[in-house]
Amino acid sequence: MKNRVKQFVAPTLIVALFSAAGLVMAQQAPKPETLIKVRQSAFQVVAWNSTRIKASLEGTYNKEDVIKSANAIAAIANSGLGSLFAAGTETGKGWHETSAKAEVFSNGARFAELGANFGKEANELASVALSGDANLVKNQYGKLTSTCKACHNDFKSKD
Amino acid sequence: MKNRVKQFVAPTLIVALFSAAGLVMAQQAPKPETLIKVRQSAFQVVAWNSTRIKASLEGTYNKEDVIKSANAIAAIANSGLGSLFAAGTETGKGWHETSAKAEVFSNGARFAELGANFGKEANELASVALSGDANLVKNQYGKLTSTCKACHNDFKSKD
Repeated sequence: MKNRVKQFVAPTLIVALFSAAGLVMAQQAPKPETLIKVRQSAFQVVAWNSTRIKASLEGTYNKEDVIKSANAIAAIANSGLGSLFAAGTETGKGWHETSAKAEVFSNGARFAELGANFGKEANELASVALSGDANLVKNQYGKLTSTCKACHNDFKSKD
Repeated sequence: MKNRVKQFVAPTLIVALFSAAGLVMAQQAPKPETLIKVRQSAFQVVAWNSTRIKASLEGTYNKEDVIKSANAIAAIANSGLGSLFAAGTETGKGWHETSAKAEVFSNGARFAELGANFGKEANELASVALSGDANLVKNQYGKLTSTCKACHNDFKSKD
């Protein structure tokens, strides 16, 4: 009888343990819609700070404002945005339906390469911003936005 | 005759110039819904990076991951979030209806004070993260999240 109980209990325990493990994993792994929402938010903040730098370059140059915005863009670019495009997030809704093209997931190496270019130029802009030299900043800002455009052309849907 | 032409042209020119200035201002001043959308995005990115630091503290500590997340939070905290709560954004929809309470706008001094606390502790966390000492990071992370809670209690609606 004890053996029969053991035989009954053991698989139940194993199932229970696996279920618990599954539950823990489910709690830790972010939902696809969360990842999509966070990446949409991150690029929104990048775009906002890009607009602020542009306003400084086209209007009255504000050194402190440009430094703050360039730092925000660089820190977000360095924060590991690639992980927000995890498998399972090919389609779905964050704040809105994802704008990521299928190529993000089918050509991950190229997407990562363009992401690295974005990070490199963003870091350089944060460095150049410290000089307060509007011409240097304008030149580097152009390099940064060209990395944005390159990635959008290949990996972001237009609608 | 020349004088009459001048009298006619001059006010017209002034009106035209003011209109052009108005147009430029209209182009430069962001819409309230843009400001609301950007602040909602910024706090979403802050929350995401906070979650990543928490995961490191509660699971396997990843020094580089914590540094990246702490830098992102600090750079956003330093980027001038207060300007996203400009007059005219008391109500309205960004990604969703604003969660800002009326007190943000009626008690701006206290809101700014709590915002400065957030920035201070975020900068300190970015600094402490470089040590890779999980206990120090845990302690400072607690200080940072207490500034989040303090502000949410007074200035963010629950629903």
